[in-house]
Amino acid sequence: MSTTYRVSGMTCGGCARAVSQAIAEAAPMATVQVDLDRQAVTVDGADEAQVKAAIDAAGFGFEGRV
Amino acid sequence: MSTTYRVSGMTCGGCARAVSQAIAEAAPMATVQVDLDRQAVTVDGADEAQVKAAIDAAGFGFEGRV
Repeated sequence: MSTTYRVSGMTCGGCARAVSQAIAEAAPMATVQVDLDRQAVTVDGADEAQVKAAIDAAGFGFEGRV
Repeated sequence: MSTTYRVSGMTCGGCARAVSQAIAEAAPMATVQVDLDRQAVTVDGADEAQVKAAIDAAGFGFEGRV
């Protein structure tokens, strides 16, 4: 089951990659899709606490579920 | 003593923050300055292996010392 979160501070492809990598490092089995236009990240295979911790540590803003 | 590294893939302030945070997490005592125009990161208080690992894990390209 995938969950979509609002993530602030992503403005380019480098940001999107950084967020994806941070989540992948925290939860290696997760699949991650980043939608820059919507400032949204859809994650399958990681729980919300893992996603929040990874995004916070990467310097972006975890804004909860969409 | 600070060392400056070339880092590819940083295109905006979000990328710069992501790189800074990644290095800070790997080496909490380090100070980090990012120069987007030069695609350079200057680090004091972390060794090169730590910096490389952090940048790789964050999804950017570690290109060695400037």
